[in-house]
Amino acid sequence: MSATDRQPTSTDAALEAHLQATAAERLVDYQAFLRFPSIGALPAHDADVRRCATWLASALTSSGLEHAEVSETGGHPVVYADWLHAPDAPTVIVYGHYDVQPVDPLDLWTSPPFEPVVVDGRMLARGAADDKGQIHAHLMAAAAMFATRGLLPLNVRYVFEGEEESSSAHLASWLEANRERLAADAVIISDTGFFEGDIPALTVSLRGLMYAQIDVVGPPIDLHSGSHGGVVQNPILALAQILAALKGPDGRVRVPGFYDDVVELSDDERAAMAALPFDEDAYQAAIGVLALVGEGGYTTLERRAARPTLDAHGIWGGFQGDGAKTIIPAHAHAKVSSRLVVDQDPAAIFEALRTFVLDIAPPGVAVTVTSLGLGRPSLTPTDLPVVRAAERALEAVFGRPPLHIREGGSIPVTASFESILGLPVVLMGFTQPHENAHAPNEWMALRNYEGAIRAIAATFDEIAADG
Amino acid sequence: MSATDRQPTSTDAALEAHLQATAAERLVDYQAFLRFPSIGALPAHDADVRRCATWLASALTSSGLEHAEVSETGGHPVVYADWLHAPDAPTVIVYGHYDVQPVDPLDLWTSPPFEPVVVDGRMLARGAADDKGQIHAHLMAAAAMFATRGLLPLNVRYVFEGEEESSSAHLASWLEANRERLAADAVIISDTGFFEGDIPALTVSLRGLMYAQIDVVGPPIDLHSGSHGGVVQNPILALAQILAALKGPDGRVRVPGFYDDVVELSDDERAAMAALPFDEDAYQAAIGVLALVGEGGYTTLERRAARPTLDAHGIWGGFQGDGAKTIIPAHAHAKVSSRLVVDQDPAAIFEALRTFVLDIAPPGVAVTVTSLGLGRPSLTPTDLPVVRAAERALEAVFGRPPLHIREGGSIPVTASFESILGLPVVLMGFTQPHENAHAPNEWMALRNYEGAIRAIAATFDEIAADG
Repeated sequence: MSATDRQPTSTDAALEAHLQATAAERLVDYQAFLRFPSIGALPAHDADVRRCATWLASALTSSGLEHAEVSETGGHPVVYADWLHAPDAPTVIVYGHYDVQPVDPLDLWTSPPFEPVVVDGRMLARGAADDKGQIHAHLMAAAAMFATRGLLPLNVRYVFEGEEESSSAHLASWLEANRERLAADAVIISDTGFFEGDIPALTVSLRGLMYAQIDVVGPPIDLHSGSHGGVVQNPILALAQILAALKGPDGRVRVPGFYDDVVELSDDERAAMAALPFDEDAYQAAIGVLALVGEGGYTTLERRAARPTLDAHGIWGGFQGDGAKTIIPAHAHAKVSSRLVVDQDPAAIFEALRTFVLDIAPPGVAVTVTSLGLGRPSLTPTDLPVVRAAERALEAVFGRPPLHIREGGSIPVTASFESILGLPVVLMGFTQPHENAHAPNEWMALRNYEGAIRAIAATFDEIAADG
Repeated sequence: MSATDRQPTSTDAALEAHLQATAAERLVDYQAFLRFPSIGALPAHDADVRRCATWLASALTSSGLEHAEVSETGGHPVVYADWLHAPDAPTVIVYGHYDVQPVDPLDLWTSPPFEPVVVDGRMLARGAADDKGQIHAHLMAAAAMFATRGLLPLNVRYVFEGEEESSSAHLASWLEANRERLAADAVIISDTGFFEGDIPALTVSLRGLMYAQIDVVGPPIDLHSGSHGGVVQNPILALAQILAALKGPDGRVRVPGFYDDVVELSDDERAAMAALPFDEDAYQAAIGVLALVGEGGYTTLERRAARPTLDAHGIWGGFQGDGAKTIIPAHAHAKVSSRLVVDQDPAAIFEALRTFVLDIAPPGVAVTVTSLGLGRPSLTPTDLPVVRAAERALEAVFGRPPLHIREGGSIPVTASFESILGLPVVLMGFTQPHENAHAPNEWMALRNYEGAIRAIAATFDEIAADG
């Protein structure tokens, strides 16, 4: 059977019937996965992350996969499993992550983040979309194929990480250490989503990440701002000066050398992005901001995904209570990051930031800059066979060929799979835009979750058919 | 008896003997006062403030004063008492405040802030210096005079406020409402301190205060900084830009019109300040900063007290936990204030700040500026009789004539007494510099506390002697 003229087979019909018969129990299992508060970045949740990993290993075994293992990394474990009984077929690695983002501000959640509920056709919980829902779709796809066929059409190795939201701190070294047993032909990463309007999409570019904390220390204790105001460098104002100096009113990052290695978009690439069916007003309304802003000379889509950024994620210092307290605070702090594009080097960008910040720090305070994570950007060739196979599967399930999009987010491990294992990577994810991935009230459309299960099965078939 | 050649009288010796005999029980009572967590600015402590006021009224009665009353203001009450049985003598108003500053960061206190302890000759507790210690010295001075003489040498009205740390929000209207019954000749405010090196001092100038909160609101919820970074105005960076624009690297406040009404120091005033025995290195070492900074063209003492300032007291927004969270936060906030000098008008300065902040706010965020308190600056003529009387009393007790100093802090009620009651004000306070008034581990030297009791009694005698 060639891939282009394939029709639903009797096996597909059996798969569909099985999936429809097991829909309710599948949601119960999905919710059980979501109940683990596996916030990898917060040490207080270390035990929760570990319990979640153990559960996931069990769930892989229950789905029919073999050699399920909670594999140590030095940080949160990788959960590994495989099925390798298709000797003439290719082998794919499926990657996802079971750690989730922190949940604050908790008071903005309409229901507790780790008590998943289905509301209006959406699963609402931290991790519903990013990335437990996508991992779970993979498990359910394998389980359904085993249930209806007794086997998979290809060999597969599952690598589910617990530190994706912490810049995949130990994944690269784990890949290095396990290179021998990770022999494969391609990698499928399911941690991305569809385009605006829920249009099926394959992601062909991810931004990298450089994340840092800036600490400004002034007097050893808070000082009375009346008695000493006027002669003491205020740590909050010093921090504000530093942050304000990082980006100009033109939206350009002012760290010297920041843009040196940026590969500019070609005219063709810009034309392709401009041709995407993107409604800027609808996007602005969806995220609810007063205006879209950004780097001069680039479109909104280019700014979101093809240009590097600088953002602040948190700031704190001094008195945060009600009313008026008149102190010069002893210290102030901020977390910042840059999303990076090819060929920016995260480590070099961190060094450039650190040097610049120390350079512009005003007198009278001690300033330090600490790296909290680095990840490389990636760019996937669109003519890879595995990309073509995924395209056909998505079209078959969702009724239209997927767009090729650049995603502004970062999955640092993408570059690691490419460079360490030498494997092509296809970024096939299923979340809807505006799914609140890192915000309160994260959700996954059940329509996309169910479609994901079918598209994953179809992708396996398409890759196997390609040989 | 003229004031200038007065000698210790038998009455003074009796007073001294009484004070020495009652020292231990006095400290117990002082500590009882300090145990009330009367943090006026925090609504959670409203009941504590009220209990403290009731205790203080009782303590005034116990000290021999009359008509003790917890007087409603619309906010925290004023505690009032008087003694008016010296028909031929002047009447003074004594002002102090029983509310205290918040205590965070709590982890920097070496002992709990409301469990007072004596360590190395210092009373250590929130409010020990600012201002409960000074109020208590007044009560003890009156009690000792009653105990040894049966009367006071003059008439006195005590006005102890519960909102001094909240910009004396209701004090002006209370003074207006009670103008009739507050007939007096002068006001003694004991809420200041001695000069560097613990040199006795009378404060002849106080800075005013304009305190505001700046709120920056971006998207309705936190956004994923990967998916949306590059096109969304970051509220933290917007706030940083605003704060950074408020003051230049030259230390000058950049709010238009800010300096318009500032009365510049005369050459004589600058010479007098330059002549003060001020060791800049010792001062820098005492507050523990890497460098002294400030407005170009002015000395450290001028910057601390005779020039207006702009400081930030608190900042918060986004993710403050451990690790890396990659959001564009929904909002960010800061508390800022300016210390003001004559003839700056706090309300006009607030309006100028608000206008400027809204003017420079970048697009894509909603910015609001809210006033959290205003207080006028004050400047006392040094040739007032009540100032001269206090000078003689301080010299008699502490062995050297007091310096005349400008204080950088604010006691907004000073201007209110001058303008509403039309009374001259002497600022006679007894704390040591670096007493951590608004910081962890606030302390009052018992030497100064004991000296204060004697100096207050002596001041009453000196004023009475002046007639």
